[in-house]
Amino acid sequence: PRGDTSLSRLVRLLLSARRSLDLCIFSFSCPQLARAVQLLHRRGVRVRLVTDAQFMGLHGSQIGRLRHAGIQVRHDQHSGYMHHKFAIVDQRMLITGSLNWTTQAIQSNRENVLVVDDAECVKPFLEEFEKIWEEYNPANYSF
Amino acid sequence: PRGDTSLSRLVRLLLSARRSLDLCIFSFSCPQLARAVQLLHRRGVRVRLVTDAQFMGLHGSQIGRLRHAGIQVRHDQHSGYMHHKFAIVDQRMLITGSLNWTTQAIQSNRENVLVVDDAECVKPFLEEFEKIWEEYNPANYSF
Repeated sequence: PRGDTSLSRLVRLLLSARRSLDLCIFSFSCPQLARAVQLLHRRGVRVRLVTDAQFMGLHGSQIGRLRHAGIQVRHDQHSGYMHHKFAIVDQRMLITGSLNWTTQAIQSNRENVLVVDDAECVKPFLEEFEKIWEEYNPANYSF
Repeated sequence: PRGDTSLSRLVRLLLSARRSLDLCIFSFSCPQLARAVQLLHRRGVRVRLVTDAQFMGLHGSQIGRLRHAGIQVRHDQHSGYMHHKFAIVDQRMLITGSLNWTTQAIQSNRENVLVVDDAECVKPFLEEFEKIWEEYNPANYSF
C-alpha cells in the first residue's frame, strides 16, 4: 500500500473477518491497523498475534496496547527475527508481502501486499502460523 | 527459506532464467545469491537490479561487486525505503516474500517466499518493476 487509500483497503480486508484473524507481524506500530484489530477482538473474532521479541518494545509499537486490550500475543525467544508480515482472515484469505505494519512503511516506502484466497497457497501459511503459535507458547519459554 | 536447502532451491529457481532476471531487492548481502546473479549475467541473461540507496553500502552488501561485474543497478533517491524483495524470471515467474537476500535472513530468521507463475498475479509486479526502473534512471537524478 502507498498512502491512505491502500491503508483503507487493508483495514477493510481485515474488518471482513467473521471468525478469526491470525497475525504474524514483525513490526507493528500503525495505530489505524491496531484499532482495526482491537475492533475485531471486541466483536468476538478470535485474534491471535505473533510478533518479534526485539521489535515489540520499540518505536511506538502497538503490541502493549493490543495485549492490554486482552488480545493474545506471543513472541519468539531467538536472536533471529520473526520476519513474517502476514495475516490470515477466517483461515481462508491470506494477506502477505513486504509491508511491515508501521506508519513509516505505509507512508514512505515502496512496498507490496498480496491478497490470496487460493487454498493451496494459503495452506503453508496456516501451517506456519500454527507451528509458530505452538513454538512460542509461553509454557515453552526457557529463562 | 530456512537453511541451505531453501537457499539451494532459490538459487535453482534463479538459474532457470533464460532471457531476463528483474530484481527489486531491499538488502542484498548473500554471496551465494550474488554468484547466481553473476553467472546469469555471464550467460547473457539480461539482469536488471533495483535496490535501496541506504542499504547498498552496508553490511557486506553485494551491490558493488555486481556493479563491478557489469550488471545494471539502479537505486532510489528517497528517505523512504525501496522495501520490495522480489525477483521476476523471464517476465513470467515471480519470487517474492518477506526474505531479504542476506545471510542473516536465510540462516536465522523465520521468513516466507512465494513462487507465483499466474500471469494475473505477476503482472502488477512487472509493472511496478518497469515503473521503478524508469523512476530510478540516473538521468533523472537530482543533486
